[in-house]
Amino acid sequence: MKKFYDMIETPAMLIDEKITLNNIKMMQELSNRKGVALRPHIKTHRMTYFAKLQMEAGASGIACAKIGEAEVMAKAGIEDIFIANEIVGISKYERLKMLNRKIKTLRIGVDNTFQIDQIEKVFNGEKPLEVLIEYEVGEVRSGIISDEDLLFLAKYVNSKKNVVLKGIFSHEGHTYKASSMEICKEKAEEAYRRTVRAAELIRDEGIPLEIVSVGATPSIMNGAYFEGITEFRLGTYIFFDLGQALAINDFSKCSASVLASVISKPTDSRVVIDAGAKALVSQNRTEGICATNGFGYVKDSNNVRLKGLFDEHGIIENKKFSQEISIGDKIEVIPSHICPTVNLYDKVYLINDGYIVKEIPVDCRGKSQ
Amino acid sequence: MKKFYDMIETPAMLIDEKITLNNIKMMQELSNRKGVALRPHIKTHRMTYFAKLQMEAGASGIACAKIGEAEVMAKAGIEDIFIANEIVGISKYERLKMLNRKIKTLRIGVDNTFQIDQIEKVFNGEKPLEVLIEYEVGEVRSGIISDEDLLFLAKYVNSKKNVVLKGIFSHEGHTYKASSMEICKEKAEEAYRRTVRAAELIRDEGIPLEIVSVGATPSIMNGAYFEGITEFRLGTYIFFDLGQALAINDFSKCSASVLASVISKPTDSRVVIDAGAKALVSQNRTEGICATNGFGYVKDSNNVRLKGLFDEHGIIENKKFSQEISIGDKIEVIPSHICPTVNLYDKVYLINDGYIVKEIPVDCRGKSQ
Repeated sequence: MKKFYDMIETPAMLIDEKITLNNIKMMQELSNRKGVALRPHIKTHRMTYFAKLQMEAGASGIACAKIGEAEVMAKAGIEDIFIANEIVGISKYERLKMLNRKIKTLRIGVDNTFQIDQIEKVFNGEKPLEVLIEYEVGEVRSGIISDEDLLFLAKYVNSKKNVVLKGIFSHEGHTYKASSMEICKEKAEEAYRRTVRAAELIRDEGIPLEIVSVGATPSIMNGAYFEGITEFRLGTYIFFDLGQALAINDFSKCSASVLASVISKPTDSRVVIDAGAKALVSQNRTEGICATNGFGYVKDSNNVRLKGLFDEHGIIENKKFSQEISIGDKIEVIPSHICPTVNLYDKVYLINDGYIVKEIPVDCRGKSQ
Repeated sequence: MKKFYDMIETPAMLIDEKITLNNIKMMQELSNRKGVALRPHIKTHRMTYFAKLQMEAGASGIACAKIGEAEVMAKAGIEDIFIANEIVGISKYERLKMLNRKIKTLRIGVDNTFQIDQIEKVFNGEKPLEVLIEYEVGEVRSGIISDEDLLFLAKYVNSKKNVVLKGIFSHEGHTYKASSMEICKEKAEEAYRRTVRAAELIRDEGIPLEIVSVGATPSIMNGAYFEGITEFRLGTYIFFDLGQALAINDFSKCSASVLASVISKPTDSRVVIDAGAKALVSQNRTEGICATNGFGYVKDSNNVRLKGLFDEHGIIENKKFSQEISIGDKIEVIPSHICPTVNLYDKVYLINDGYIVKEIPVDCRGKSQ
């Protein structure tokens, strides 16, 4: 093991091992206490290494966003995968057919009959594909909105022989924009109530539903819960990021950072680092409890944030910080939004007490097809 | 050759071969007419394939942003590379030393004495490293600002035996925010005037300067020029993007697009595609001639733009477009900002007349160290 600062070429992604293991344990225990299954969403880390640690800690399975991710995870031995997204395309269902033969449990999200018809066609004579209906609860993204459409789709699925309706899922992503933690929790619980009600509507039609899946890191960290939920499905809690740390007012859970070098100090307040939009992503949440006010937070600093990101340069404007730092120094930046940031790297460095424990491949990086 | 829509898994990046070759030729001819060298910046495409085409078309060399890129390009046989960025760190200079032995011409950007001291130390006994001083002309990024600092650094470099001052360079990136094409050109020419003047100041000290390098796609497309410039250094012109097309009011030069599938239509106006922030980057220029008003433009559409990007979903809100398109259809999206978008892909599909000509690896993807 070597002291890491000295030999890591920047920009690079570092993962603090202790904090990450604590985060995994913390969320599993929280789910266990509530009596719901935990299905971590691996779109945050995109690494089989961490998915396996989450499974070993007690996760019931994993959630993915894309078939490409699910294929990599299945190859690594994970046997219970829910792709929480609408999959469309005959060639994609052909791939799902192969995957469905290979692992114990494969499920996908649906919100339209076009998908059901494609599944029905491709899965003919196969082990049926299990699906969960996506229900919209305020995020303004995908998912069924009206009761009428919901019941129509549930009955439509139920009438097919190669598709099995297993449950319902929703994502309370709009709670990221809540103006306080209390309102975040309220909005999340209202979203959960609506999801549970939607499940009841379907059950009232005599269609059994096993799973009611919800979750997002800020909501669950703020204690949101509603009777009838069977599964928490969330991703960012493993590493946190600037937005998520602000949502819970706690930076101590941030385990991922981008190591960068100071390459220029053109004025007495401007510090330029070698991590730009290809190393940190220029996302900046503008409202609510996750509002990041910039493009990253200098770790262990007194609120030093990146003001700007060019493709290859990160810009800090801070006179005091500039006085304390020299060209050639390395700093760690907590990204604004971790999920697309991890996806920029081929590997991460696992760090423990300042030493490199190992290099971990981001083996689902770019696997968005 | 196969018709491409049918078999490409989405999201994927497509490059139109004819338009790209035309763009390469157009910029080379424009530079030739002005009598200045063209040094394409490969940070846009990050592919040795296109760098070689640019060299074959008459480019004097290439510009890179990172050593990682330069190493890949040198390995592919490119012998004249300028890394237009401040490089810091002994280990990085050790890598540059290897590269300097290998290729005919290697140059880097400098704006501080810390770099010069590191070069002087590492390059002792080697072929000296050639450098260009970066001069700030309004972008508020890196580069020397005052005449005093400029002359101090020029003399400092000139006093060393392992570093050779070859020129000066600037980047008029602030012109992206100009409110009109005329003002863009004016601002660019003012930036060029200042760069040429800075070169003269150094020459007046008896220090010869061979190169005066400037350039950004909107400025040069708008005809900006100033006597004394020796080199155009720009990247985006090879593919253009939404911001750059708006800057010149011409979409016909956009040769890169992201192929995406419609996966959901939750309302009568909302269309959800399978390309999110991991396939299109959620950058949105907010002001000036490059203001993108959204996160991508649906190719050949009547101003249909992506309103939102989640990690894995792109959102269009357009009633008319929604009526015309079905779940399962594939669309092409011109990205808001091409440079970080290409960097998300391992390969691109080269397309000619609707057929796949070949798959090209993005061999510098992620090579930001």
